[in-house]
Amino acid sequence: MAQEIVSKSIKLSADLPLDCGQVLSGVEIAYETYGELAADKSNAILICHALTGDQYVASDHPITGKPGWWQRIVGPGKVIDTDRYHVICANVIGSCMGSTGPASLAADGQPYGMRFPVITIRDMVRGLVGLLDELGIEKLHTVIGGSMGGMQALSLAANWPERAERMLVIASSARHSAQNIAFHEVGRQAIMADRYWNGGDYYASDASPDNGLAVARMAAHITYLSEEGLTEKFGRNLQDRETKSFGFDADFQVESYLRYQGSGFTQRFDANSYLYITRAMDYFDLAEEHGGTLANAFAGASARFCLISFDSDWLYPTAESRHIVHALNAAGAKVSFVELSAPHGHDSFLLEHEQLDRVMRGFLDG
Amino acid sequence: MAQEIVSKSIKLSADLPLDCGQVLSGVEIAYETYGELAADKSNAILICHALTGDQYVASDHPITGKPGWWQRIVGPGKVIDTDRYHVICANVIGSCMGSTGPASLAADGQPYGMRFPVITIRDMVRGLVGLLDELGIEKLHTVIGGSMGGMQALSLAANWPERAERMLVIASSARHSAQNIAFHEVGRQAIMADRYWNGGDYYASDASPDNGLAVARMAAHITYLSEEGLTEKFGRNLQDRETKSFGFDADFQVESYLRYQGSGFTQRFDANSYLYITRAMDYFDLAEEHGGTLANAFAGASARFCLISFDSDWLYPTAESRHIVHALNAAGAKVSFVELSAPHGHDSFLLEHEQLDRVMRGFLDG
Repeated sequence: MAQEIVSKSIKLSADLPLDCGQVLSGVEIAYETYGELAADKSNAILICHALTGDQYVASDHPITGKPGWWQRIVGPGKVIDTDRYHVICANVIGSCMGSTGPASLAADGQPYGMRFPVITIRDMVRGLVGLLDELGIEKLHTVIGGSMGGMQALSLAANWPERAERMLVIASSARHSAQNIAFHEVGRQAIMADRYWNGGDYYASDASPDNGLAVARMAAHITYLSEEGLTEKFGRNLQDRETKSFGFDADFQVESYLRYQGSGFTQRFDANSYLYITRAMDYFDLAEEHGGTLANAFAGASARFCLISFDSDWLYPTAESRHIVHALNAAGAKVSFVELSAPHGHDSFLLEHEQLDRVMRGFLDG
Repeated sequence: MAQEIVSKSIKLSADLPLDCGQVLSGVEIAYETYGELAADKSNAILICHALTGDQYVASDHPITGKPGWWQRIVGPGKVIDTDRYHVICANVIGSCMGSTGPASLAADGQPYGMRFPVITIRDMVRGLVGLLDELGIEKLHTVIGGSMGGMQALSLAANWPERAERMLVIASSARHSAQNIAFHEVGRQAIMADRYWNGGDYYASDASPDNGLAVARMAAHITYLSEEGLTEKFGRNLQDRETKSFGFDADFQVESYLRYQGSGFTQRFDANSYLYITRAMDYFDLAEEHGGTLANAFAGASARFCLISFDSDWLYPTAESRHIVHALNAAGAKVSFVELSAPHGHDSFLLEHEQLDRVMRGFLDG
């Protein structure tokens, strides 16, 4: 059965008040949907994407031509079965795949650049809720998100508890740790140090800060993988050579891989968006938004929660998920929690994992 | 009692054959010594420094004016007691504090830059052994090194086993892992992406690749600290402000700290040296140098070994030290090993630690 793909963009009719105090008008939200919306609108699932993700969760990426980032999970007969569910995945504001972000035109007809307001995870969710309002979807069957997507699910649960019946939060955290912030700051400094960044004003230029963005991506990419996974996949293997070159080429496979990840990323992502979205993640602290006690964030929660972590994830380790589970328990919410064993670190949520599939299916059907 | 400080540099009379096949002539080794050499030369301790360390182990740094990097450990009456021991600490070749490196003048009177040969840890030790030859020191009481310094101690033990009676290896490894290489590659790419790097030819220029070098240092610095240590020291505390700025200044203390570490580093270190030394570390695999079996590296060892690791060190975790200990055991060497508990990650070897002091004292006196 052929998969129907709908690619759309909606201009929100309502203004978007932001946490910084500014208001964004005429916000565009680019999104994709998969599967039919039931007549009673009871089968809508919102998938929230991660830092460098996008709405192309289960359709080919328009720039890279690669399959959707969760094609494995979303589709007819798959874990998130589009024969049963109507799946919505929208590009977050601040990003660069069609939703309003720093590359968008401001009122003066010029790209925002660094004039774009600093946004938060909650602001991203404001944009998503705005989209749901436009689509006339009052209550979601489930909100699902991994990594930064999980932060959005948590923020939605805390601030718009009436909008979803189930929250599935994978490999995520309710706050960014000092180490999380530190890695992001390295990436931002790499971008800002690039000769072509030019204070964020490069959209009309022939060159963009690709080198800085590639370095940022390389540093971040290491945090997505486990030490064990890197050793298993690359070890100290040399790339296309028998002996070391005694030079600065990519002698080791892991160097070659990282360079490839870095340069590939620059073809599909905007450096300023990287600055804004990492900032939003660093600012995220759901407890702080609710008087310093995470349980308060979930005081009004009637949804069912499922938290999933991976034992080799050192970016958002299991302790962060457990911290959320404790808060949900304290708030009297319905919550299940499982730590899965996987060798591939944070990226495990994007990879083949039978137990992950089983847990997700069970939760969606429950 | 005033501490006598001797600052010297020696030009090696012998050529230095390198692992890459090239030969360096007229190599300068800059070094410091502390304490008197006994008439029978039996009390000499060689301290090997880490990646960004130098010979100023217990004397003020000539550029920063800060105390020596192991001032806490080395001095009269201290753990390495300069009333009893003659301590030698030399700048490794490839570095930038007086020993021959990429900023040194080549035969044509111009700085080597990237014409400097790619060196290895064993090459660094060749330089140190050359220094010992010049100083007429046949056998060291002890070789001590933390981190890259420990790699030098291991290399010396494997290749010049007759030159030392004791080897003290702290927070180190016999090989660089894929993750270790990956982090170094990020740093190198950051330097090479800097507009002022110019293929390594910047010594006559007004500007040097400070931004790239700072990013490299920031990324590396995160790996020197533990997640727990960062959380304890900085958490999500804001820097000199009550609320978030909703901008890209260093809102968080951890950002401010990292920026300070990055920019401070550029004042005292050469970007090309950073490329060469990280490359040497990435190339390090003591087993590979000895037919693929680490125990072979220590086949001729008569020295006593002491290995120390820290439980929160994720750069060179305890497993790496244990791996060395197993090889030493297999080779029939005398070895003691202790994992110390410390919250501060890899950097623990530089910080106050009573048990570390006790283990070191015991080993030196034994």
